[in-house]
Amino acid sequence: MRIGVIGAGALGLYYGAMLQKAGHDVAFLLRRDFTAIRQNGLKVFSFQGDFHLSQVVGCQSPAEIGPVDLVLIGLKTFANQHLIDLVRPLVTEETAILTLQNGLGNEELLASAFKPEQILGGVAFLCSNRGVPGEVHHLGEGRIQLGEYQGGLSARSIALADSFRDAGIPCDAGEDLLSFRWQKLVWNIPFNGLCALTGKTVTELLDHQPTRQLIQSMMQEVIEAANQQNLASPIEGDIFIAKMLHLSAAMEGYQPSMMIDRQEGRPLELDAIYKIPLDRALSAGTPMAQVDVIYRCLSVGETHSSSPA
Amino acid sequence: MRIGVIGAGALGLYYGAMLQKAGHDVAFLLRRDFTAIRQNGLKVFSFQGDFHLSQVVGCQSPAEIGPVDLVLIGLKTFANQHLIDLVRPLVTEETAILTLQNGLGNEELLASAFKPEQILGGVAFLCSNRGVPGEVHHLGEGRIQLGEYQGGLSARSIALADSFRDAGIPCDAGEDLLSFRWQKLVWNIPFNGLCALTGKTVTELLDHQPTRQLIQSMMQEVIEAANQQNLASPIEGDIFIAKMLHLSAAMEGYQPSMMIDRQEGRPLELDAIYKIPLDRALSAGTPMAQVDVIYRCLSVGETHSSSPA
Repeated sequence: MRIGVIGAGALGLYYGAMLQKAGHDVAFLLRRDFTAIRQNGLKVFSFQGDFHLSQVVGCQSPAEIGPVDLVLIGLKTFANQHLIDLVRPLVTEETAILTLQNGLGNEELLASAFKPEQILGGVAFLCSNRGVPGEVHHLGEGRIQLGEYQGGLSARSIALADSFRDAGIPCDAGEDLLSFRWQKLVWNIPFNGLCALTGKTVTELLDHQPTRQLIQSMMQEVIEAANQQNLASPIEGDIFIAKMLHLSAAMEGYQPSMMIDRQEGRPLELDAIYKIPLDRALSAGTPMAQVDVIYRCLSVGETHSSSPA
Repeated sequence: MRIGVIGAGALGLYYGAMLQKAGHDVAFLLRRDFTAIRQNGLKVFSFQGDFHLSQVVGCQSPAEIGPVDLVLIGLKTFANQHLIDLVRPLVTEETAILTLQNGLGNEELLASAFKPEQILGGVAFLCSNRGVPGEVHHLGEGRIQLGEYQGGLSARSIALADSFRDAGIPCDAGEDLLSFRWQKLVWNIPFNGLCALTGKTVTELLDHQPTRQLIQSMMQEVIEAANQQNLASPIEGDIFIAKMLHLSAAMEGYQPSMMIDRQEGRPLELDAIYKIPLDRALSAGTPMAQVDVIYRCLSVGETHSSSPA
């Protein structure tokens, strides 16, 4: 399969490397890592085994990549104003476009420029960080849950999940992408925001009873909102929260992406992870009051994102 | 009047200096500023006019100060475990004990060791910062509202307010100290916490619509809670909030004390400004939900303060 990776941060570099290692023909759109990867290839440091790709196709413009079978999108959502222009040169009638970006609104944005039936979305449970240019660190997890933007379990999505699994990436195709998206938000909304705001890791927030309770309470808010979004089946609150906390307990010292974005002075993914979910929750009559407080605190000093209503 | 200042931070140094300049016999309990003040006296840089006190009585233990007519307390509330021991050597049957500390619970603590009728409390609307040792900066405002811990308008509180005014400190005595305390919390709770948490100044938070709205909404929560605390007269929500915002608009670039405490790695005054008010609000059936979220975020990493319920 010919694959183009748009947005080669930690997620794009890691999944792209795994797919290339499995024999796929992968091209990466690179910026920060371009020179390092051209010179020395790409090094993956993974808890499941390190590896090095000495020959990597790195491009500086999407036109250099050209048409592919699969566009894999890992672009930070705060750069979404560039998304369509970055993806367009890779797309033919046959191309599948898979966004693994955070939060809500990404498939809708793609659907404004491409055919809805070409679009898939996925959520990635991946603990990874970029290292120095030319290196990526895979710290834990890695599972992808993907589905068609238009819903339903397609042959294409099943085949795609098979390809990912064959490449060593745990992956499930499902019929309700929206469920995957909201389930992921149950984790992302409390942890990304609270870690970014307090400067504390997942572990530190869970070890401190008042923030642990706040996390649980925010998860409850997200679940109540999610269950008014016409998901195929409701999220079972207490069970799901217990599962999320159990997963999180294994992420010793983990710093979510928004915390790192803030530390490194990048914009925050506030629209995708906060604004659009808050708007949809409000429209469905289930406002997320605690989430709203955190969003407002995060938004001050962020010139990029839209403002809360 | 012989006055002993316990807790010579910006507030204690400024008011103590003003009282000494007016002819009162003031002794300061010093720690950080001891050597500098012994050598060079105390310099006050004030928007109302700088002055220098070349002779200042600085002590390193409260026993050196000994009995006084008035104990003026500016101690940070996170050091309240030392309060009684610091005050005791200054107190006789005739001594008035005035705490200008932040938040709730300070008069009650004093009343656990001294006669309730000796205790007064006051709220200070003072924009001040410590400079290098031996210097204090008076940036704006300065008004004190004081009252008897046991309530009522006493001759003593009126005389004290007169002495303060004679020393150039705007001061009113009132019959309902609890009202003064809660009114001050309407400002302190949103601004101290949000500035400390976001690292943004009063001005930056007010200039950003989403945090401006959050501030107003938190003020509303505090007022609703305050109005269930048996105050002499209720706080009028919209009018009072408009007044607070108007005052705050004049504090260009101001950094509240909790923001500076956090920047300088000191503990935060969470018990006095958050925990006790939250507990009292909850007991009265008016929980402050947004304030609670901010408190929980502030509390992580603070080993000193009690935890939220």
